Amino acid sequence: MKRFLVMLSLAAFAFVSCGSAHRCRAQKGDVNEGKGYRICDGVVVFDEPKPAPGQQDMLGYAAEPLPTVRVGFIGLGMRGVSAVDRFTHIEGVEIKALCDLREECVKASQRILESKGWPAAVEYVGEDSWKALCDRDDIDLVYIVTDWQTHVPMSVYAMEHGKHVAVEVPAATSVADCWLLVDTSERTRRHCMMLENCIYDFFELTTLNMAQQGLFGEVVHVEGAYIHNLDPFWEQYYNNWRLEFNRTHRGDVYATHGFGPDCQVLNIHRGDRLERLVSMDTESFAGKATAEKIMGTSEFANGDQTTTIIRTAKGKTVLLQHNVYTPRPYDRMYQVVGTKGFAQKYPVEGYAFEPEQLTEEFFDHENLNAHSFVSGEMKERLTEQYKHPVLREIEDIARKVGGHGGMDFIMDYRLIYCLRNGLPLDQDVYDAAEWSCVGDLSAASIENGNMPVAFPDFTRGRWQKLDGVHFAR
Amino acid sequence: MKRFLVMLSLAAFAFVSCGSAHRCRAQKGDVNEGKGYRICDGVVVFDEPKPAPGQQDMLGYAAEPLPTVRVGFIGLGMRGVSAVDRFTHIEGVEIKALCDLREECVKASQRILESKGWPAAVEYVGEDSWKALCDRDDIDLVYIVTDWQTHVPMSVYAMEHGKHVAVEVPAATSVADCWLLVDTSERTRRHCMMLENCIYDFFELTTLNMAQQGLFGEVVHVEGAYIHNLDPFWEQYYNNWRLEFNRTHRGDVYATHGFGPDCQVLNIHRGDRLERLVSMDTESFAGKATAEKIMGTSEFANGDQTTTIIRTAKGKTVLLQHNVYTPRPYDRMYQVVGTKGFAQKYPVEGYAFEPEQLTEEFFDHENLNAHSFVSGEMKERLTEQYKHPVLREIEDIARKVGGHGGMDFIMDYRLIYCLRNGLPLDQDVYDAAEWSCVGDLSAASIENGNMPVAFPDFTRGRWQKLDGVHFAR
Repeated sequence: MKRFLVMLSLAAFAFVSCGSAHRCRAQKGDVNEGKGYRICDGVVVFDEPKPAPGQQDMLGYAAEPLPTVRVGFIGLGMRGVSAVDRFTHIEGVEIKALCDLREECVKASQRILESKGWPAAVEYVGEDSWKALCDRDDIDLVYIVTDWQTHVPMSVYAMEHGKHVAVEVPAATSVADCWLLVDTSERTRRHCMMLENCIYDFFELTTLNMAQQGLFGEVVHVEGAYIHNLDPFWEQYYNNWRLEFNRTHRGDVYATHGFGPDCQVLNIHRGDRLERLVSMDTESFAGKATAEKIMGTSEFANGDQTTTIIRTAKGKTVLLQHNVYTPRPYDRMYQVVGTKGFAQKYPVEGYAFEPEQLTEEFFDHENLNAHSFVSGEMKERLTEQYKHPVLREIEDIARKVGGHGGMDFIMDYRLIYCLRNGLPLDQDVYDAAEWSCVGDLSAASIENGNMPVAFPDFTRGRWQKLDGVHFAR
Repeated sequence: MKRFLVMLSLAAFAFVSCGSAHRCRAQKGDVNEGKGYRICDGVVVFDEPKPAPGQQDMLGYAAEPLPTVRVGFIGLGMRGVSAVDRFTHIEGVEIKALCDLREECVKASQRILESKGWPAAVEYVGEDSWKALCDRDDIDLVYIVTDWQTHVPMSVYAMEHGKHVAVEVPAATSVADCWLLVDTSERTRRHCMMLENCIYDFFELTTLNMAQQGLFGEVVHVEGAYIHNLDPFWEQYYNNWRLEFNRTHRGDVYATHGFGPDCQVLNIHRGDRLERLVSMDTESFAGKATAEKIMGTSEFANGDQTTTIIRTAKGKTVLLQHNVYTPRPYDRMYQVVGTKGFAQKYPVEGYAFEPEQLTEEFFDHENLNAHSFVSGEMKERLTEQYKHPVLREIEDIARKVGGHGGMDFIMDYRLIYCLRNGLPLDQDVYDAAEWSCVGDLSAASIENGNMPVAFPDFTRGRWQKLDGVHFAR
């Protein structure tokens, strides 16, 4: 029976591309053991499904404008409840439905609506109740803030039922599931946006704008990470789902916060494309001890530190790291290395430029050289000068709502703004797939002795159709 | 004829090990195109020469004590002349001979000796004059500060003529040459120490001592780099030799300043061993422009940024970076990630620890947590408490000589101290080979599409003979 399923899946995944250089046709009997990939000339190549007949890409896609966006929330734990709260500060929104496994979580979100004078939402409680929420015909957007492994079934079901989807990071945990999101979005013509908030952080937005203005020259290398000691937080995840996921998966399972901003600076699938990935992890030392303490098991797959390197078609590289186990200060490692400038966010924010990059007003012959960071005062002036247009716009709104000027609010605001105005979203389904698939790709590299992995092209060859990253306005 | 040579070399390099898992016997006709490696199950495996009959390892080797160390210098450019100056501050040294291609460089060093009241040294000027220096029988140590590609012929010739060798970084630029240094040292029973100065830098020594005292728990990951914009310096290298080397070589061609301290913290070939390496580079953008400006050619092999990851037998990882082309502040990226603590040198020095790691006097319940760096004041106290014994000793001497308390002086002082007392040197020939071979290994990984490369075991299986890194006293 297992063999039968594998053969079936081979029939569906007929051709796979092997990097840019060669093609590798699946052979009859070329069983990939259900892993979803095969080894082709020393490169791991994941299966690529065939699109449905007539299926069109979602590059630059804009849906019909929605003067009021009617939202249903699935998942009202710590991050879900704060999303509900943020939405009460956005114009043109109706919160129609609230869903969680636990009644108390639904009630807590309901109380927020009540306290803000908003109408009560319909409540859904229990294992499969999210389907009923998606079945409603008075909802435009399903906002999913659940554990990682329920993201795809919920997103797919919601899109199949005509809803746009916003889903927490990572949107999916396997390459096959990334394809499922892409194909469902293309087939149903519904948005599927991942809720990657760090692309809206101030330093990242400013730096993206600087890059787009050419301040770094040619960007050649970028870095990102999720380095966050989760020791104090593990038990806050319902039924230890996050620790259990890491316990059973090697690889960079949580790459998007670092990788998202990196991909935007590199214009990924908007002029360049990710081509090849290699990953390496340590043994589990600290993670194992944590699992022993919390779950009573010493079996632990995820390495304490996982390092991943990726190369693009245009010869740029990305460095990613994941470490949620050892005591070190929080670090998303955001770095931009250009031929004419440099940006670094952690542990202290800094910019360095060739003097010629700056206009007369910033040019300080005495103090500016490429061997040191610009002064704090000049950094402030540059940050103001190169403030991203989205930040400039949101400042006014943030001032109005007060206390909600953070990146989460900007993210939600932009999502609703684009939906209301019928604009392409800042993050499309290809971003969601590209940023999320790093988990599965890095695991495959590691499990095959750090073998290079061909990065899937979720646009199926259309990565030069769009020209650069733009935030529609 | 070329084919004949290749076959000859295959006869000499009969067995090659393929990582830890499998062995791969060279086949007749299995021509490796003179690259010095073959591909074995998707892994690059470099040829390993057979040792001479009776050849013994140099692990823990101590030579006969030399009450006075008689030194000859080859290479008196910028770094060479400052080495001569430093040696005039060390007791028990005689500077017997000075050699350079250019007479004016020899004269400049001679003037330093004169100004310090030291006897004049014998002068050697011109292309092959270094051989005559090595032929002398009144020299114990040949100190080599030349361009990278002359290091090996000079070191080998000096050892063959009974001299100990200290040679600048990298000691060699190919795996075959690394083996040549190891085999020559083992056969001639002469020291071959690479002049890796950064292991003697204050932060690195203190951090090594903290690691050895267990302050970081189990060290799981380390980082190192050579990130130094050489734009203002390229033309200071005689005949542009450095830019020319980079122009014709991909890979991390200058890894030792970051990698040396990393290997010491991990006890490499003193309990653990480097097992596998993967490397990835960017295209050349800035490097190409520099070569065009300085050398009038746009052919440039070395990527602007090269990233390398390495895994050890005990499941630890190393991250290395090389970038000498783009404008960013100097950064050796030195980082130590442990299960109980963390150290980071750039861009600002910082330590973080689990509170339990520190004794009562350092334990500050209010302020210390693993989510932030310790305060500047606590860092100072810890740095004093965990000062490396070598630093404590050298402080007095540094005070005496004045102004020479830097890592270069400590390096020279330790070299002479160990030679005079008949002690093992701090860095042995296996360090020189391991730290230097990264250039060739990373190039092979990159040229084969980021394929994993088996890290040569220059100890030929004896990497557990010594127990940890020690500075003999």
